[in-house]
Amino acid sequence: MRAVWLENQLLSVREDVPDPEPLEGEALVRVRMAGICGTDLELVKGYYPFRGIPGHEFVGEIVQASTTQERIGQRVVADINIACGKCPDCQADRQHHCQDRRVLGIKNCNGAFADFVCLPLQNLIAVPETVSDAAAVFAEPLAAALQIQQQVPISRKDRVLVIGAGRLGQLIAQSLVTVAGQLTVVSRYQRQQALLDAFDIHWIQEGDIGKRKFDIVIEATGSAGGLTTALQAVRPSGTIVLKSTYKDRDGEKWPLQLSSLVVDEITLVGSRCGPIAAALDQLEKQQVDPSGLVFQRYGLEEAETAFEQAAAPGALKILFQIAS
Amino acid sequence: MRAVWLENQLLSVREDVPDPEPLEGEALVRVRMAGICGTDLELVKGYYPFRGIPGHEFVGEIVQASTTQERIGQRVVADINIACGKCPDCQADRQHHCQDRRVLGIKNCNGAFADFVCLPLQNLIAVPETVSDAAAVFAEPLAAALQIQQQVPISRKDRVLVIGAGRLGQLIAQSLVTVAGQLTVVSRYQRQQALLDAFDIHWIQEGDIGKRKFDIVIEATGSAGGLTTALQAVRPSGTIVLKSTYKDRDGEKWPLQLSSLVVDEITLVGSRCGPIAAALDQLEKQQVDPSGLVFQRYGLEEAETAFEQAAAPGALKILFQIAS
Repeated sequence: MRAVWLENQLLSVREDVPDPEPLEGEALVRVRMAGICGTDLELVKGYYPFRGIPGHEFVGEIVQASTTQERIGQRVVADINIACGKCPDCQADRQHHCQDRRVLGIKNCNGAFADFVCLPLQNLIAVPETVSDAAAVFAEPLAAALQIQQQVPISRKDRVLVIGAGRLGQLIAQSLVTVAGQLTVVSRYQRQQALLDAFDIHWIQEGDIGKRKFDIVIEATGSAGGLTTALQAVRPSGTIVLKSTYKDRDGEKWPLQLSSLVVDEITLVGSRCGPIAAALDQLEKQQVDPSGLVFQRYGLEEAETAFEQAAAPGALKILFQIAS
Repeated sequence: MRAVWLENQLLSVREDVPDPEPLEGEALVRVRMAGICGTDLELVKGYYPFRGIPGHEFVGEIVQASTTQERIGQRVVADINIACGKCPDCQADRQHHCQDRRVLGIKNCNGAFADFVCLPLQNLIAVPETVSDAAAVFAEPLAAALQIQQQVPISRKDRVLVIGAGRLGQLIAQSLVTVAGQLTVVSRYQRQQALLDAFDIHWIQEGDIGKRKFDIVIEATGSAGGLTTALQAVRPSGTIVLKSTYKDRDGEKWPLQLSSLVVDEITLVGSRCGPIAAALDQLEKQQVDPSGLVFQRYGLEEAETAFEQAAAPGALKILFQIAS
C-alpha cells in the first residue's frame, strides 16, 4: 500500500509498504480522509522519537475484522489511544493514560497517512450517516477541544480567552461560543479572523488582551510563548488550560516564577485527548461546523508539500484525500 | 513599643518604635503571641521588598478601637489580607486577591512581631475561650492548610501525598488524616517523624515515594525541588497543590517540560491563604492539635536567635511570647 513514512525526522512517501494485517480483536480500515495536526508537525521536529506511518486524525471504512462480520463497511473514526486493559491506570478507568498504551501514528502504532490502518474494533466508533467525511475527519481534534469541558466546568458566568486561532483554537472556540458567558479569541492571521467572524466569535489582537481579566484562559498556540501570555491574561484564582504538545527546545525552561502561581492561586490544567463519541454527536447536531477550517486537500503522494503547507504561519487544516 | 524591624534584608530589634494608632474602622491589638512562618524567612532573603515590622501569625487582645467599645478585651486572630473593597477582585468577592491589598507583615502593613499591631476590625476574628493562645497562634497557617480543601475536593477515594513535614506540612497532614483515603507524608527529620507518629500519620523517606502513585500531591517543602518530586509522584490526570512561597533564585527556572503536563493531563493548583474562621473551628473541636509543633519560645528581644532557629533544617514552630 501507499503510506507516508517518518524516520529520523525525515518524511517520505512509500508505495511498497505491506498492507497491515488485523490481529485478534482488530479491524482493517481503508482510510478515506486524514488530517494533519500540530502534533504531526512536532513529530517531524522530533517531539517524540516515532518511526513509521504518522497520522491520527482520519475517517475510514472497515474492510476486514478478525472476529466479526457485522461491522464490515461501517464508516468509522477512532479513539487513538490503544490501552493495555491491565495496568493500574486501565483498571482505574483511565485508559487514555495507560502506561503501556500505543497511540495511533504517535507511539508504537502505525497511523492513518496510508491506504489502510489497523486498530482494535473497540477503538473504532461508527460515524452517523449525516456526518460527511470532511466533517468526521475532525472528530479527533474536536474531542480534544471538548476535553477542556470534561476537566474544567465552564458556564455563562465565565469570561473565557482562547489564545491561538489555528486548527485546534477554532474548534475550541466553536465548542465554547454557546457555553461561556463571554468568549474572546486571540488571532494573528486574517484567514483565522475571517473564519471567527463567520461564526460571530469575538477576536482580538495579542496586544489588546489586557491583564488579569479572564476567568479561564485556554492556551492553544502550539508554542511556549502562549503560556506567558496566558499568565498575564488570567485573573487571580483563575484557570489556565494547556492544550499544546510541542517539543521542548533544548535548554528551554519555563519562564514563570513559581511563587506567582501560589500567590495568585492560579490553576494550570494539562489537557490532551477527549471523548470521540461526544465529538461525533456535536458534528451530527451541527453544533460545530469544521468545514471552513479546510484549507487544502492533497493526495498522499504530495505529503511533503502538504506538511509544508500545514506548517505555514496561520495555516488551517490540511487534509489527505486518500480514498472515497 | 518594642518591635522586630526588617530593612534591606537585615533584622533588628527596636525599643523605640512609636505605638501604632488605629484609623477609622481599625483596632489597636496588644500582641500576646506570634509565630515565625516560612514566608517570614523568605522575606529576610528578599522574597518581597518589605521594610517594617514582619509577622503575620499572631493572637492578641483588642485594647482600643476607633468606632466601637464592644470588642475591647476580645482575644483575636486575623485575616492577614487587608482589601480595598473597591477593585474588580473585591467586587467579585475575591478580597484575598485584591490588587491593592495590604498584607500584614508582608506588604505595606506593619506586622505582629511587636507589642502592638493595628488592623481593620473586620479582619479580626474572636478566638473561642477554650482555644489557648498557643493553639490560636496557629489559626493563620492552619487556614492556609485548609485552603487546599477549598480548592481541591479530597475524599476517602484519594491517595494523598504531602511532601514536606515542617510547620505547614504537619498542619496539612493533620487536617487531611481523616479526610483522605490514604495519607502519606514525606519527612526528612526525626523530630518531624516523631510528631507524625504521635498522630498515627504514615510517613516515608523521599526515596520511597515511587512513581505516578498518588491522586493528589501537596508540595509543602518551601523549596523548588519539591515540585520535581511532586511531578514524579502524581498519577496521570492527578493534581499537584503548590503551597510554598519562596524567592525564586536568580536565573532559576522551572525544570519541567511543559508537554509532560499536557500529555499526562496534570493539574497544578497554586494555594495561599485560607479561611480563618474554619481554622478556629477546627482548633476548638480539637480536630487539629498544633501543640506538638511548638519547638521554642523566645522574647522579642531574642528575634535574631529565633529567626536562626526557625531557619534550621527540620525546624518546627518558633513562637514569640510577647505579652500574656
